[in-house]
Amino acid sequence: MTQRIDGVGAAPGLVIGQAVLWRKEQPRVKSRKVENPNREVSRLEEEVLRAKEQLTRLRESARERMGDEEAAIFDAHLAFLDDPAYVGEMKSRILDRRQNAEVICRDVTEEMSQMLASLPDEYMQARADDIRDVGHRLLLLLSGQKPFDPSLIQPGSVVIADELAPSDTAQFPPGIAAMVTARGSKTAHAAIMARTLGIPAVLGLGEDLKRIREGETIIVDGENGSITLHPDPDTLDQSRERIRRKRELWESALKKADQKAVTSDGRRIQVFANIGSPQDVDAALKNGAEGIGLFRTEFLYLENDHWPTEEEQFQAYRQVLESFGDRPVVIRTLDIGGDKDLPYADLPKEENPFLGHRAIRYCLSHPEIFKTQLRALLRAGVHGNLWIMFPMVGNLSEIQQAKSLLEEARKELENQGLHIARNPKTGIMVEVPGAAVIADVLAKEVDFMSIGTNDLTQYTLAADRGNERVASLYDAAHPSVLRLVRQTCDAARREGILVGMCGELAGDPRMTEVLVGLGLDELSMSAGTIPEVKERIRRVQTDEARKLADEVLVQSTPEKVRYLAEKSR
Amino acid sequence: MTQRIDGVGAAPGLVIGQAVLWRKEQPRVKSRKVENPNREVSRLEEEVLRAKEQLTRLRESARERMGDEEAAIFDAHLAFLDDPAYVGEMKSRILDRRQNAEVICRDVTEEMSQMLASLPDEYMQARADDIRDVGHRLLLLLSGQKPFDPSLIQPGSVVIADELAPSDTAQFPPGIAAMVTARGSKTAHAAIMARTLGIPAVLGLGEDLKRIREGETIIVDGENGSITLHPDPDTLDQSRERIRRKRELWESALKKADQKAVTSDGRRIQVFANIGSPQDVDAALKNGAEGIGLFRTEFLYLENDHWPTEEEQFQAYRQVLESFGDRPVVIRTLDIGGDKDLPYADLPKEENPFLGHRAIRYCLSHPEIFKTQLRALLRAGVHGNLWIMFPMVGNLSEIQQAKSLLEEARKELENQGLHIARNPKTGIMVEVPGAAVIADVLAKEVDFMSIGTNDLTQYTLAADRGNERVASLYDAAHPSVLRLVRQTCDAARREGILVGMCGELAGDPRMTEVLVGLGLDELSMSAGTIPEVKERIRRVQTDEARKLADEVLVQSTPEKVRYLAEKSR
Repeated sequence: MTQRIDGVGAAPGLVIGQAVLWRKEQPRVKSRKVENPNREVSRLEEEVLRAKEQLTRLRESARERMGDEEAAIFDAHLAFLDDPAYVGEMKSRILDRRQNAEVICRDVTEEMSQMLASLPDEYMQARADDIRDVGHRLLLLLSGQKPFDPSLIQPGSVVIADELAPSDTAQFPPGIAAMVTARGSKTAHAAIMARTLGIPAVLGLGEDLKRIREGETIIVDGENGSITLHPDPDTLDQSRERIRRKRELWESALKKADQKAVTSDGRRIQVFANIGSPQDVDAALKNGAEGIGLFRTEFLYLENDHWPTEEEQFQAYRQVLESFGDRPVVIRTLDIGGDKDLPYADLPKEENPFLGHRAIRYCLSHPEIFKTQLRALLRAGVHGNLWIMFPMVGNLSEIQQAKSLLEEARKELENQGLHIARNPKTGIMVEVPGAAVIADVLAKEVDFMSIGTNDLTQYTLAADRGNERVASLYDAAHPSVLRLVRQTCDAARREGILVGMCGELAGDPRMTEVLVGLGLDELSMSAGTIPEVKERIRRVQTDEARKLADEVLVQSTPEKVRYLAEKSR
Repeated sequence: MTQRIDGVGAAPGLVIGQAVLWRKEQPRVKSRKVENPNREVSRLEEEVLRAKEQLTRLRESARERMGDEEAAIFDAHLAFLDDPAYVGEMKSRILDRRQNAEVICRDVTEEMSQMLASLPDEYMQARADDIRDVGHRLLLLLSGQKPFDPSLIQPGSVVIADELAPSDTAQFPPGIAAMVTARGSKTAHAAIMARTLGIPAVLGLGEDLKRIREGETIIVDGENGSITLHPDPDTLDQSRERIRRKRELWESALKKADQKAVTSDGRRIQVFANIGSPQDVDAALKNGAEGIGLFRTEFLYLENDHWPTEEEQFQAYRQVLESFGDRPVVIRTLDIGGDKDLPYADLPKEENPFLGHRAIRYCLSHPEIFKTQLRALLRAGVHGNLWIMFPMVGNLSEIQQAKSLLEEARKELENQGLHIARNPKTGIMVEVPGAAVIADVLAKEVDFMSIGTNDLTQYTLAADRGNERVASLYDAAHPSVLRLVRQTCDAARREGILVGMCGELAGDPRMTEVLVGLGLDELSMSAGTIPEVKERIRRVQTDEARKLADEVLVQSTPEKVRYLAEKSR
């Protein structure tokens, strides 16, 4: 009988697939005395080598399919296998105690991971998980148990797991259709990975997860946050029909990705891409980005072990500006601090880094670092349509200070006789609630505003967007966040300046009509969602969208907002 | 010649006094071999004993004059002198190396403090400062240098210091007139102590501090954040006249402290006290509090090593309620998390605790702990005029959940046949920006709202109120914060419910007229400022205050807001 179970919809999409239980076998370990401890040490060394081979393969395949960041997890595992405090300790204990390698491996792993977990540092706690993972692998090898082999999972399968750690998702073979877990929320690692891979995820099913059997057909609905077990033929048909319609929409969207997005009554909405480095330009162009709404410049700083030079920055900015010709490229100045650290910057530890000395605050107190970036931007601006955006602005004087440093940079370059952009547009990210509240005051000082809903939401609702314990409170569809969006749009309209949005909300097709109704001129998002959002815009009728937005703003909860937004589609 | 130096006004007040330089002598240490290391160890032991005597005396005098919290700093110092890893290490090194105690003490102190400072934990870093302090004291004793004796400072003196640590201020003799430092901001320890002692403080003078000579007459203006050196007779006369007028205002305010605060055109504003425990009730009554606007209940949890029982809580709440008879007592339910930890609660470390699982969020996920408090409140409510206030509310469902737990508690008590408060008023603190933005929605669900400006400001401006590096951004007089206050007042008026304020802004007499103009019905503050704020209210004319508030809301910066507020006085 059809059985629906509700969880947390952590990544959108609808699929029908076969359940595959992601297994973490518990190795059976028996203690025994060994007569020849040297031979036992050799056995350990062999299995350590084998574990290293496995991890190296996993690292390479993760790198190819998912990039360096995902692959790095296996570097951490490999490092432990070279650590004398780990494998070396096992060897000397085997010689000392004449016990078998399995018991010693289990005990040393447990002790080290407990020690790491007890340190008051998140980094060390993550290392505690790593050592448990690598110890588990070594133990399976030592005890001759065949480890669960993810590479055998068929494409189209739905992975069912208690929880998915980075070392799990990094082993995903291509073609996984969806993820379903007992624990985790929208901000869990699995949720982020699912959104990156573009597959649906339903998390937080709790004890209900145990009702899923290996191989059975299940429906995963990432938008509603539910799964369906034992679907009857009608339910299956309905789901197939929904999937078919979605695919049609998607295909038609993709065909028209290059065309403008104009509402049914003729209002043009510009759809831009968010990018994190020049490497993202191709995908943005392919998906029909009409410009770049947010070019995050942190990659230049994070990938280097020194402050990037003016020339290094110039080259990167120029490359992106040239690719987009006369289309706008909004480049955000350095946004470090908060959750982004730089080893070579003097960023002291803060109790609440999200409420700390980050972004424009850091730049204004380090004018030389900031001016290097501004000079690179002004020089690169010659090669395209440059818009400069300052992040985390909360008051007027920050804008004035930033603009006066820009003016200094301009004069310096002119004195050097260099060719620079004439009057690039300057604007701010609206992400501090106070900036939205006085948007009318700030709008007078800038050429454009772009609403960063991720930070705006976390500050407005006082809920850290990375903290699972308050994940249920964090929702950009909260009426108070949307009211601040409306207020910002109204202020921009009165001053005749452009207002966009570059937070995650902008790329949520379910909210497109509401956003048009709130008065945004431009939406910027990750490239993959551009075609669908454009297609949604084409179906919007401005007056109705305005009415919908008005209605949404007087709702009492984000759930009611989302319900209304869904209903109108 | 009269010379004015500007710094940060960290505590208000105006005084003329003699400068006393707060000295930290650097002990001169010479290394030498000792022939009889056992005798050297005895010498060390003697001076350790003498240091303990000094610290015990300091502890007792700090406890008498400033309370347990200030005294605790010396407990930490004493504990180090009993730590075998510290003094024990010194002794064994003397025996090993046959070096004099001074050198050994210097080295061991330095090594231990560096080790502690390197740990990624603020607690340990504070301990690193402690061990430097205690090592410094021991070193002065060993080297026979006479330490600077704060008890010789004359009443009326202005303490001049590079920086003032807790171990410094805890040694303040009575009658210090003001504090002036080179480093520190509004949130520094010295600033907090100055406000507690009710004396002006000007911090952050930097290098200019060195221009102050021992014994010279200086004027300290904590409101403008400036000091004046070598004042000419005219300047001195003007300052004396200002001090006289202030004293008159203060005396007249004190005489009328018991009377109501009614504006010149007849609008009554209720002036309440914030208290942190039943011990604060006397001061509140003496200063003319017409009720309690914020009774923080954390003391019950922080002073205990277990969850306080229903009975323990009942007694404390009853005591305060009885003292105030039929006057309102607003009791805030537990507000832990954020910057307040409880050793026996399961509060995991969070990356951004101020944006984390705190206050009502914690209580709603621990219903048994919460219901114990609600039961105690309902029972105590029989003995006075109880108002229950929920902190950190950000959405409607939190109010609904809290009220339904209150209802459960009520039923449980009724089933037990206990006597309980009938329909105590329930309300919320408005301190999450999102709550202010949808105050119209939330106002429908509550009997009153009270604006907590400390948290509201830090979230609205995304600036941690405890982080010195963003202290210049944190200002409750920011137009965006005041707009949210106005919005909340308007929403309350439309629903016909009472709206108050219990953050620090409420107790700032310079802002009283603006606050009346914004539409607040009630202001709650630390007891000491009640008479002055009441007196300010009596001089307010409501229409003018409204005009002032309207003007303030369209300003672009907090500085302009404060300028207008000052000008109108």
